[in-house]
Amino acid sequence: MILELNDLIKVKDVGPRDGLQMEKAVIPTEDKIKLINDLSKTGVHGIQVTSVVHPKAVPQLADAEIVMKNIERHENVKYSVLVPNVRGAERAVLMLADEWELMHSVTESHCRSNGNKTVDESLKEHEKVVKIAHENNVTVQGGMATALGCPFEGRVPFERVLYTAEAYYSMGIRHIGVADTIGCADPKLVYTTMKRLIEKLPDVEFSLHLHNTRGMALANILAGINAGVRYFDASIGGLGGCPYAPGATGNVATEDLVHMLDLMNLQSGVDLNQLLTISKDVERLVGHQLESTIHRAGPSYQVHAAPTKQEKIENQ
Amino acid sequence: MILELNDLIKVKDVGPRDGLQMEKAVIPTEDKIKLINDLSKTGVHGIQVTSVVHPKAVPQLADAEIVMKNIERHENVKYSVLVPNVRGAERAVLMLADEWELMHSVTESHCRSNGNKTVDESLKEHEKVVKIAHENNVTVQGGMATALGCPFEGRVPFERVLYTAEAYYSMGIRHIGVADTIGCADPKLVYTTMKRLIEKLPDVEFSLHLHNTRGMALANILAGINAGVRYFDASIGGLGGCPYAPGATGNVATEDLVHMLDLMNLQSGVDLNQLLTISKDVERLVGHQLESTIHRAGPSYQVHAAPTKQEKIENQ
Repeated sequence: MILELNDLIKVKDVGPRDGLQMEKAVIPTEDKIKLINDLSKTGVHGIQVTSVVHPKAVPQLADAEIVMKNIERHENVKYSVLVPNVRGAERAVLMLADEWELMHSVTESHCRSNGNKTVDESLKEHEKVVKIAHENNVTVQGGMATALGCPFEGRVPFERVLYTAEAYYSMGIRHIGVADTIGCADPKLVYTTMKRLIEKLPDVEFSLHLHNTRGMALANILAGINAGVRYFDASIGGLGGCPYAPGATGNVATEDLVHMLDLMNLQSGVDLNQLLTISKDVERLVGHQLESTIHRAGPSYQVHAAPTKQEKIENQ
Repeated sequence: MILELNDLIKVKDVGPRDGLQMEKAVIPTEDKIKLINDLSKTGVHGIQVTSVVHPKAVPQLADAEIVMKNIERHENVKYSVLVPNVRGAERAVLMLADEWELMHSVTESHCRSNGNKTVDESLKEHEKVVKIAHENNVTVQGGMATALGCPFEGRVPFERVLYTAEAYYSMGIRHIGVADTIGCADPKLVYTTMKRLIEKLPDVEFSLHLHNTRGMALANILAGINAGVRYFDASIGGLGGCPYAPGATGNVATEDLVHMLDLMNLQSGVDLNQLLTISKDVERLVGHQLESTIHRAGPSYQVHAAPTKQEKIENQ
């Protein structure tokens, strides 16, 4: 198990897009802009700002252009937008994002359910998007949904994951995001999958997108670090959810991830206190309790005053 | 990172004592007995049944004798009671438990706050308890509260942990429970502490008692397994809490632990489906939502039918 590490662990906050998209309340545009501006100052490596989907499909993100235009951009932060297709790419070109994110399911049933395409048809569409990106000097992250488990097919053979990864590679993509779409992955699966992907495509930067649906997000991050992954998605407050498990938790919370890395003396460059201030704002914004454990319990080693009279509860 | 293992991972369910003790609702004695009888059939290695504390101090456990007398005992399950002092030992002798559990804080401030004794005074009291146990052929688990962090002192020097472990060893104890009392431990701390303890006292069986207060319970269990620990406490439904972080989650849920072990193909011998049936009963019993993620989200790879019309939400 890795105990010491000189590498920086990069963190991308996907709360503004992946998180807020799942909220019932429509979040005012100015609040989104403030959230992104606040996150920009925390030290995160990237922020998933928005998505260029059709406003009727996702009304929460109808303000994509306005948000991208009005945020304050920090030099060290990569601002990314999710680009689902060629029509979206045409809009995205005008947004001047640092990175476009593709989201493609590696399993046939989820690919068809989500985008009404086969895996190969979806990859062909994405190839056109990548071409537009590269013509406009925008880097692309190839996302692999259902890579660590599919709601319709269960466990996914590694060959299916590799098939999409190699397709992305042949398009010139050198950053691939591996997603546990429904939060079903375990540390062994994460470790073996990432180890094999890194061995197969050593010049690709792999990031992990993990949900805490079944309590394993931080264990899976630990496994990912051990396999060589140095880049993780997370969502402020743990925003987001899982459409297949209503009421279940969503993305791993950025503050939970940074808190664990801090305790382990692994460097992320992200300021936990700032995150905790932001998550208080976010809780007010969305109007319900956040899933972030650090938001609820506070960081470890908030030392208390010893009580003056004997406590009656045996604390074990 | 350990990927394959022939060892059995033992699980002790502490819900009936450590969990229910934190509940506001008084749980009827017959419901406790049913819970313990149900847990006995799941394949758990041990159940922490009750505690012989003064009924005025912990009214929830005033029925200790009645519960111990009326449960059905399974041959392969160890039924333990928490024994805080000599007076408790005298009661416990009559209960015919398989194991007595001692709970002693390794830090001075917590030891004084919890039991109004110094560490050495507390160890002296426990030595008398151990003597009574051994005279009655009962094995003893020496519990070490605050071993992985203290609410009043923060991080605890390893020497303080070793001091209590060696004191227990010299009393003839060969099973020591290491507790993350306030759920502040991280995987690196768990790994290094357990590795060092096992090296110092190789003929002791160490178990880990972890809380999920800051989302790291399963990551810490992973670290514990990597360090050589093969015995974990857990609590059905994630019952229990932390008096220093009201509203925060408590013990790692037995079903969350077993679910992760199952996915990783590590053997616990515990039946997840039975646990999930029991946690439904427990939720009714305590009258509030349980923290167990598997109770909320269901196990991984519950394969769904693919939807017939295109889903509008981009599931990432």
